[in-house]
Amino acid sequence: MKSSTNDPSQPGIRSRFRSPHVKQVSVGGFWADRIKAVTEKTIPILQLRCDEAGMFDQIDPARPVPEQRIPFSTAFGGGKVRPVGGNVTAQMYWDSDVAKMVEAAALTVAFRRNDVTEAVIDRIVDMYEALQQEDGYLNSWYIRMQPGKRWTNLRDCHELYCAGHLIEAAVAYYQATGKRKFMDVIGRYVDHIASIFGAEPGKRRGYCGHEEIELALVKLARATNEQRYLELARYFIDERGRQPHYFLIEAEERAEEPGRFAHGTFEYNQSHIPVREQNKVVGHAVRAMYLYSAMADLVTEYGDEALRTALENLWDDLVTKRLYITGGLGPSADNEGFTSDYDLPNETAYAETCAAVGLIFWASRMLGFGADTRYADIMEQALYNGALSGVSLDGASFFYENPLESRDGHHRWSWHRCPCCPPNIARLVASVGTYAYGVSENEIAVHLYGESEARLELGERAVRLSQRTQYPWDGLISITLGLEEPAAFAVLMRIPAWCEKATLKVNGDVVDLAATLQRGYVRIDRTWHSGDRVEIALDLAVQRLYAHPNVRQNRDRVALRRGPLVYCLERIDNPAPLNRISLSRDAAFQVEFEDKLLGGVVTLQASAASEDTEDWPRTLYRSEPPRTSPASIKAVPYYAWDNREPGEMLVWLREA
Amino acid sequence: MKSSTNDPSQPGIRSRFRSPHVKQVSVGGFWADRIKAVTEKTIPILQLRCDEAGMFDQIDPARPVPEQRIPFSTAFGGGKVRPVGGNVTAQMYWDSDVAKMVEAAALTVAFRRNDVTEAVIDRIVDMYEALQQEDGYLNSWYIRMQPGKRWTNLRDCHELYCAGHLIEAAVAYYQATGKRKFMDVIGRYVDHIASIFGAEPGKRRGYCGHEEIELALVKLARATNEQRYLELARYFIDERGRQPHYFLIEAEERAEEPGRFAHGTFEYNQSHIPVREQNKVVGHAVRAMYLYSAMADLVTEYGDEALRTALENLWDDLVTKRLYITGGLGPSADNEGFTSDYDLPNETAYAETCAAVGLIFWASRMLGFGADTRYADIMEQALYNGALSGVSLDGASFFYENPLESRDGHHRWSWHRCPCCPPNIARLVASVGTYAYGVSENEIAVHLYGESEARLELGERAVRLSQRTQYPWDGLISITLGLEEPAAFAVLMRIPAWCEKATLKVNGDVVDLAATLQRGYVRIDRTWHSGDRVEIALDLAVQRLYAHPNVRQNRDRVALRRGPLVYCLERIDNPAPLNRISLSRDAAFQVEFEDKLLGGVVTLQASAASEDTEDWPRTLYRSEPPRTSPASIKAVPYYAWDNREPGEMLVWLREA
Repeated sequence: MKSSTNDPSQPGIRSRFRSPHVKQVSVGGFWADRIKAVTEKTIPILQLRCDEAGMFDQIDPARPVPEQRIPFSTAFGGGKVRPVGGNVTAQMYWDSDVAKMVEAAALTVAFRRNDVTEAVIDRIVDMYEALQQEDGYLNSWYIRMQPGKRWTNLRDCHELYCAGHLIEAAVAYYQATGKRKFMDVIGRYVDHIASIFGAEPGKRRGYCGHEEIELALVKLARATNEQRYLELARYFIDERGRQPHYFLIEAEERAEEPGRFAHGTFEYNQSHIPVREQNKVVGHAVRAMYLYSAMADLVTEYGDEALRTALENLWDDLVTKRLYITGGLGPSADNEGFTSDYDLPNETAYAETCAAVGLIFWASRMLGFGADTRYADIMEQALYNGALSGVSLDGASFFYENPLESRDGHHRWSWHRCPCCPPNIARLVASVGTYAYGVSENEIAVHLYGESEARLELGERAVRLSQRTQYPWDGLISITLGLEEPAAFAVLMRIPAWCEKATLKVNGDVVDLAATLQRGYVRIDRTWHSGDRVEIALDLAVQRLYAHPNVRQNRDRVALRRGPLVYCLERIDNPAPLNRISLSRDAAFQVEFEDKLLGGVVTLQASAASEDTEDWPRTLYRSEPPRTSPASIKAVPYYAWDNREPGEMLVWLREA
Repeated sequence: MKSSTNDPSQPGIRSRFRSPHVKQVSVGGFWADRIKAVTEKTIPILQLRCDEAGMFDQIDPARPVPEQRIPFSTAFGGGKVRPVGGNVTAQMYWDSDVAKMVEAAALTVAFRRNDVTEAVIDRIVDMYEALQQEDGYLNSWYIRMQPGKRWTNLRDCHELYCAGHLIEAAVAYYQATGKRKFMDVIGRYVDHIASIFGAEPGKRRGYCGHEEIELALVKLARATNEQRYLELARYFIDERGRQPHYFLIEAEERAEEPGRFAHGTFEYNQSHIPVREQNKVVGHAVRAMYLYSAMADLVTEYGDEALRTALENLWDDLVTKRLYITGGLGPSADNEGFTSDYDLPNETAYAETCAAVGLIFWASRMLGFGADTRYADIMEQALYNGALSGVSLDGASFFYENPLESRDGHHRWSWHRCPCCPPNIARLVASVGTYAYGVSENEIAVHLYGESEARLELGERAVRLSQRTQYPWDGLISITLGLEEPAAFAVLMRIPAWCEKATLKVNGDVVDLAATLQRGYVRIDRTWHSGDRVEIALDLAVQRLYAHPNVRQNRDRVALRRGPLVYCLERIDNPAPLNRISLSRDAAFQVEFEDKLLGGVVTLQASAASEDTEDWPRTLYRSEPPRTSPASIKAVPYYAWDNREPGEMLVWLREA
């Protein structure tokens, strides 16, 4: 597909880095275990749960129309009951849940074909084909449950959001198997959508209350080389937040009071002002991440500098004021999203798994217009911590919320009334290899380290990169290039900002990092021969991290990080309730790989002090401070918590 | 009224101390300002708001039946929308809101007759008289809104709770004015209730899901000398939590699934087990306090040792594991009540004003069976802090929740969808003098200090106690007795447990406290003459208080107390965001009475350190701890917060 620009006289940023396709990267080591759990456990569970919930009863036109499950708050499954705007039911977004399950399953099929999984997907594709209306329209809720109401409430009802997930699923299944049917069905649906919405006279100037279709359309455009899908994505992005406000027009058409909707502010869905004017990350966190992801794609595709400036501002706002150290985001359950600057409560952190996954989407797309470790660092931080915590080690249970402290009230569940997170983390894990690399016309950027084999295409050239490493447990990485014949191109190797001591050698020769480092990447531009080897040694010293003084929840507290991994204490490994423990500022850490623990993890041990209760009188308060006794602590990686006996967990430890 | 006992062979505890009537104690000084604000501002506001809400439309049978305002979560007024069990609407407990308003107004009329206020009350009494059914039944919701449904859902629908508040209102108005009409109406209603509920064959073995009628019936019994009201109270207490469980029987009669109700546990309304077996304070905090209050009354009246043992266990559980330092209680908004031991979050503390008021009710009734400063200390702590914070200095705005930390998101409101707290704090303030004294046959206990004139009756003898003091600002108290003729009796003077240095003189002679102190009271048993004077000096040194090591939220933090007052920082008085400030462990306090500030308060000032942000890079986390600069802080009494410019507030300060 050709790239175009906003203004023909200003070429702007040309398309730079694209991620490889999932089939191009075989992953080993740390992530192979995660992918195995997702493939063998999560995917069958997702299929079963979609079935149990009755999703296929809604989609399959051959079955009787099911009952409506309203109100939302009494919907099936675990999780806390929360009130939601009157218009929304769980079933309204079931298409998206099914689509994400299909996408995750398709990504695992890409690695290794699986007849059973494909048969399930083929059956679902058949249902959707049968369900699709004459004019291409395809949404099970509005076809079966609320016929005649289509396109009447884009603000609340996830209609284009569902379309977006169907698009992503179709692309993934097509790329995994080469089967075209789903793509054809979805292509007709997108053409229908394009006939309804747009800036052209006679079309509705709508866009979705839950962003998603925008990034999906970019994916579709890239998979099909069809510029018109990109144009539709750009229309949705450009229109968002413009006056007259579409959601007000639409509410009036429904004869509803325009101000009466969930959360009462258009910040909730980032439509409060046009996107190019936005500089604060606000509202529902997942929506925000999906929006920014699509915006970043458009910067890459169109070289849109105004969009890029907005993204830089938004990024800066997020990482300097609103991001948990785990890469989690969106502290409030109330709006499933952002609150105020520096408001990062630990125990009540919402930090939805989907939001961390969305941040990885966004960060990876920021790498589309240039390698910069600011983005790769955050991508890695969210990946190894706030996102990965969302699925258990065995792939069978899940977190929706990812707090940084738990007093034993927060545990993984086997399903949820709003089952958006399990397929989201599953599709991320299944495609994790695609986030490791970026390929432009004459450059390969290595964003993430990890045991893997990448078969990349640099223009016409095939380049194989074999990464051998125990990362994230060990900082030694060796990458061997495989080429059919010698070729000149650049390899960009990331040196994470958290790494205080790194060395890099090319075929044994040390490269002067200080002289060559640009935005955290070493650019090695040379004629490469097959067998050439790049070796990196990243120092994985244990680090103590302190939060900005305005983060009130973390005063007098410290977090532990080793490499990309944030650590936590779990009660089971420690001698006292976790908040009675205080680490002394100069305590040294004993670092040990324990292969029997949590599937094999590096643990950190140190001496500390623990407050005594023995001498405390039968009262809650006294005028003498508590006494302490020596204690020793053991920390495990945050992603692995709540995989053993349930109990307390704490990321931010007291330090004295 | 004669006291009786459970077992005639065991006299048990005879009725000991009763509180004086509100007319017997004229209050000056600190509390006079509060009573003035309640009388002049709060009472007219309460009347207006009841009217605006449409409460009288529901009560007055001469008006058309109003529309039902369902669901509860969309009810009028401010406050956060919270989901509530499907059966409950705001209107269901409007009788209680009106009754509490009447009671509060009646208490102010007791001090000084007021034709306007009395006219309003008389009009309300007329409405209730007109509304009352042939058989005595009197509940505006079930008569007007849901006719035919009376007594079908005691669990959820506040029917007997409303009756309880009507009883309390009638007693207060009768005692304030001598007008009998309301008492007669209510007497007929109580007789009807007694004909429906009881252990006798043919009666329903029900009791209310929201305790209140039990303590109201004791009040009615004491006001009328009618033993049968006491017996009905005892029946409700004894029946609670017994098997077969009434709420299950009742749910079955409604053909409802018995397990489907708000909060899903009978701990919510303390009916999970019989009351004598209870030893953990659980569930909805206000309900718990009202229950324990009635239980304590029954210990005083019947000398029921089993009930007393349960109360001692419950008290111990509350004060050693579940009470905020402000005397606030019930940390969770979810159940408006208790969670787990030592769970006392500051910022999200629910700590409803009504619960602190309820604790004062309970503590004062524990003093019924003997003076013990354990109870008086907690009563005073809740009174001056967690309860009094519920009303603004001018009496015009209110807190429902009383957190111990606010990042400027919590402010007083002028009304609330669930307007239970304003009349509750109003009736408490208006009657505060009655909590200061206890009178038995031959003893007067002085529980609370404060400028006041008490005209007590000790048997046939009139005893006048004139307290002169600047308490709580100053610890000097002088009490002069007024008697018609010399008389022998005991005066019990409380020495608060928080006071580390106290002296007491009788007519200038020092009393040896160490030798005479019993349960925190000095018992002065002598022949008193008019003009005899007791002088007490309580040291009001500023104290630092530390929380039990299991209270995870208060690690490395300290609270400041001076006398009965807990202090807090407000942003307006301090140089930096409050959690950036750290008090050094040895800082001295400068104590100053500022008569222009907040109606006149003692402030505390000290030097501290404040974390800098100037040298912090544009990032949220760094590996170097924050730097600090010297700062000075100023603390004000907690009850007075949010009466100036809105901003942050903090009780538990960092200490290093």
